[in-house]
Amino acid sequence: MSGTDASRQAVTETEQPVFVLVRPQLGENIGAACRAMWNFGLDQLRLAAPRDGWPNPKAVAMASGAGHVLDRATVHADQAAAIGDLEYVYATTARPRELTKTVFTPAAAMQDALQRIRAGQKVGVLFGPERTGLETADVARAQAIISVPANPVFASLNLAQCVLLTAYEWRRQATETPAAVMDPGKLGLADRESVDRVLQRLEDELEGANFFFPSEKGPTMRLNIRNLFSRAPLTDQDVRTLHGIIRTLAEGPKRRRR
Amino acid sequence: MSGTDASRQAVTETEQPVFVLVRPQLGENIGAACRAMWNFGLDQLRLAAPRDGWPNPKAVAMASGAGHVLDRATVHADQAAAIGDLEYVYATTARPRELTKTVFTPAAAMQDALQRIRAGQKVGVLFGPERTGLETADVARAQAIISVPANPVFASLNLAQCVLLTAYEWRRQATETPAAVMDPGKLGLADRESVDRVLQRLEDELEGANFFFPSEKGPTMRLNIRNLFSRAPLTDQDVRTLHGIIRTLAEGPKRRRR
Repeated sequence: MSGTDASRQAVTETEQPVFVLVRPQLGENIGAACRAMWNFGLDQLRLAAPRDGWPNPKAVAMASGAGHVLDRATVHADQAAAIGDLEYVYATTARPRELTKTVFTPAAAMQDALQRIRAGQKVGVLFGPERTGLETADVARAQAIISVPANPVFASLNLAQCVLLTAYEWRRQATETPAAVMDPGKLGLADRESVDRVLQRLEDELEGANFFFPSEKGPTMRLNIRNLFSRAPLTDQDVRTLHGIIRTLAEGPKRRRR
Repeated sequence: MSGTDASRQAVTETEQPVFVLVRPQLGENIGAACRAMWNFGLDQLRLAAPRDGWPNPKAVAMASGAGHVLDRATVHADQAAAIGDLEYVYATTARPRELTKTVFTPAAAMQDALQRIRAGQKVGVLFGPERTGLETADVARAQAIISVPANPVFASLNLAQCVLLTAYEWRRQATETPAAVMDPGKLGLADRESVDRVLQRLEDELEGANFFFPSEKGPTMRLNIRNLFSRAPLTDQDVRTLHGIIRTLAEGPKRRRR
């Protein structure tokens, strides 16, 4: 496959991962991220709650040469809204805190993403705010983690550098890996939105039954639940089963009384 | 090999490639290159005829956090002087002009460099001036070419980005990072017995609440539940969380009556 064919292929909506900048702070960095993406043929960008609002003139100035990536970018109220339709999401973190999730190198992650995308899945990669990076709650909504194997004593990569390395690995995998055989039909994965909905329902039921007690432990307990159901992608059948379980357990005793 | 061991190894003079900035123009870019090198454990930098002379305060400011790379950097009159003692030199170019030389991707080049360095050769990588890149005369003194497989219609990488990708590939090759790191020891994975116990408890509760109805669908429904919780390995925390959820949902209403 020639580089040009590869690049054409890489910019079709169906055959590339979506990059999601979560609460990005500086417009300059958003623009630099656009350039880094387009350097490797990626142009599907989403912005979750950009700090300085949208549009951002500084982002436009910095994106020069990759302006169409910015023009096509969609803006979302928060991280959950930005990934609602995605089936598999990777969270980039400098230091893997979530040891209960698979930690991929950028190379392994983009190899994995390539197989999923070729199987018809909608895949996304989360990048955190410049200063703080992704919060634990952001990571909890992802299925896997991407950590750049940098120098442990100097691992600090800026946002555009992290986007650049991930985009570079995507293109490297996409142009060097022969298509693998996989049946999209058999997957039937649930999108993040329906997963969020059933987990929210579960949390509401538990809330009503004073599960999150004492209250200071609440956040950790909610996180444990999210992690428990984010470890692997859930299928539509899984989500239906979960709804059934929640309804039955919550209403079961009443039924028995009938 | 742990990341720390890898980084210690990567900073010993004998086991890393020398990076040579040929006629670099802006001090800021020299400083950014130092950071990019140190991000991946490289600290052997040489400067050939830096345009604005040496030392350069702007380089110092920009190198913050990787200052020792700058401090150790050697300055040379021209490219020839900068690579005089090296046995094998790669020239980075956006567009491979010298088709009489091997053109490596960064990955292949650093794999090749790793073999040479482990065989005791002194290896260097040339990076050209920001505006023009390496001249044909510069490339002529190199044995091979490194070309980043970027988007043909937007291949422009700045100096620090080119240094970053090359340093990243060096470290990737030098520290055989496993594709996906998931250490069961760290995870505290639950054994099959405790998983079976909690799933059995769930099924019993559901049984008691007439979940498996009509009865001929029971086996499939039980299978769906097993699948739902078998898709990924459960941790001990997951099992505790599940017990809590089941107890709460099953007994919740009673509690609320108290």
